Amino acid sequence: MPVCGDDVLAAAARIQPYVHRTPVLHSQRLDALLGVRAAFKCENFQRIGAFKARGAHNAVFSLSSEAAQRGVVTHSSGNHAAALCLAARHRGIAAHIVMPDNAPRAKVESVRRLGGHIQFCAPTLAAREAGAAAIVRDSGATLIHPYDDPRIIAGQGTAALELLDDAPELDAILAPVGGGGLMAGTAIAARHLKPDIRIVATEPAQADDAFRSWRSGARVTDAVPNTIADGLRTMLGAHNFTILRALLDDFVTVSEAGIVQAMRLVWEILKIVIEPSSAVPVAALLEHRERLGLAGQRVGIIVTGGNVDLDHLPWQP
Amino acid sequence: MPVCGDDVLAAAARIQPYVHRTPVLHSQRLDALLGVRAAFKCENFQRIGAFKARGAHNAVFSLSSEAAQRGVVTHSSGNHAAALCLAARHRGIAAHIVMPDNAPRAKVESVRRLGGHIQFCAPTLAAREAGAAAIVRDSGATLIHPYDDPRIIAGQGTAALELLDDAPELDAILAPVGGGGLMAGTAIAARHLKPDIRIVATEPAQADDAFRSWRSGARVTDAVPNTIADGLRTMLGAHNFTILRALLDDFVTVSEAGIVQAMRLVWEILKIVIEPSSAVPVAALLEHRERLGLAGQRVGIIVTGGNVDLDHLPWQP
Repeated sequence: MPVCGDDVLAAAARIQPYVHRTPVLHSQRLDALLGVRAAFKCENFQRIGAFKARGAHNAVFSLSSEAAQRGVVTHSSGNHAAALCLAARHRGIAAHIVMPDNAPRAKVESVRRLGGHIQFCAPTLAAREAGAAAIVRDSGATLIHPYDDPRIIAGQGTAALELLDDAPELDAILAPVGGGGLMAGTAIAARHLKPDIRIVATEPAQADDAFRSWRSGARVTDAVPNTIADGLRTMLGAHNFTILRALLDDFVTVSEAGIVQAMRLVWEILKIVIEPSSAVPVAALLEHRERLGLAGQRVGIIVTGGNVDLDHLPWQP
Repeated sequence: MPVCGDDVLAAAARIQPYVHRTPVLHSQRLDALLGVRAAFKCENFQRIGAFKARGAHNAVFSLSSEAAQRGVVTHSSGNHAAALCLAARHRGIAAHIVMPDNAPRAKVESVRRLGGHIQFCAPTLAAREAGAAAIVRDSGATLIHPYDDPRIIAGQGTAALELLDDAPELDAILAPVGGGGLMAGTAIAARHLKPDIRIVATEPAQADDAFRSWRSGARVTDAVPNTIADGLRTMLGAHNFTILRALLDDFVTVSEAGIVQAMRLVWEILKIVIEPSSAVPVAALLEHRERLGLAGQRVGIIVTGGNVDLDHLPWQP
């Protein structure tokens, strides 16, 4: 296994000074609607508004001083970029972010605000990879992959550690799968602390590469996702594939309508701003609670983040 | 004074089994934008989604068993009605809610869900008051005023008690004023725990009856409010007028544009769903921080609630 429980425990100690211990929220009214007793681990309240702060800090603070001095690089332009900039700033080193020249202004400003060095490139994956490779070659900076890296996986697993510390009686834990870093880390942490807990992955049916990979045993790398859950459009990483195959008890996919309904329910009843990706495990309870055998059970949900465009909410015309 | 610090302490003990101790949130990024060190007391996470649960439980659990058996009544149809229904259910007694027959469906359903007995009437204040008076006459139920009642004021003050318990170093405390129950309770609790804390009331300029009352010394009762902060459209109550005149250090009014900007900032950065009324103290920091002498200070803000219509957000066309 590329990552073990002790790696997650070590990550928790390493990142503790730099990230928030986020609260766990409950709602009797939401429980009644979902038919479970749900505990929401609110990573939307995490630094930079998403769980990605955990993995990035673990990766950056795992570097040797020598490697760290040469900086870090990524060509992911979303929450991972912001997280990497923050972690690099905390360590006092440079973060280089390769971004397509048509990147949304909000993402560019977020990286600038956090002190990242932006290098623009043509809006293709090849151009982004080439840009990052050139920085690595020229500066010796370390490329930090957004999800398929053992340090990232161990860092993301710390959210589940805290959740199980606050709610040790959980029967099951649910998270969404994009590249799989969060789900893999969650599975490792949960299985380590509580060997008999049920670990359930959730994914949009319209971005079900990880589900098909898990079911078939052959990793899907060429799907064309089409989901509102923009954080889950990436393909499952190789390390994460290995971990999910080994540790998951179940895996369900959900409809786009279910994601929107679940997102709105959480905003309306829990009064928190969550992104569509965070609504995927909630949609899984709405659509598959009985089949998953979770009715009446104590269920932990990792709320991934809250970075949404408030001008364009999915339930509005 | 109609209410003293010990009344708030007694209320806190009385309501503790029935209401949430809500979290206090902070954000470095929001602090940078507001120019203060802000602590947000999140009553949007309170039972029924608003601080009103506190006062209603204190009023209902202050009744003698004999009076309680005859039930409670209100003709307020918003958060106070929902709060009264919940408190009555917790005590095992009836709550009668007089509502106009054109009340929004969401409010009717909220009261039904909480087990309240609805009596519809014509959509005028006279009809509502007559309906409530008839219930009092026929059943002996106790009318619980939504804000101008010492039990309600003492209950609302418990939010500030908890805030100062979690953040004892605050230099100032801010809340919005509608009928004044929350602001009066907050002022009593804060002054009791921390005699030198600055107590600042905030109100929309387009619903400034309390501000004008406070400044002139003559209570304004006939204003025509026109603000997006729907929770603050009521006139200042008589008890609350007395308390605010005695205890406030300052009082500022804010623009409608400031309220919308502040509400959006809180959603975007703190990742919580708050109603426009809750944004009024935040708008006060945006518009009056320097004049209030709060730059760089530790400021507590009571976030009143999170019951909003997600289909109609004020920053959208």
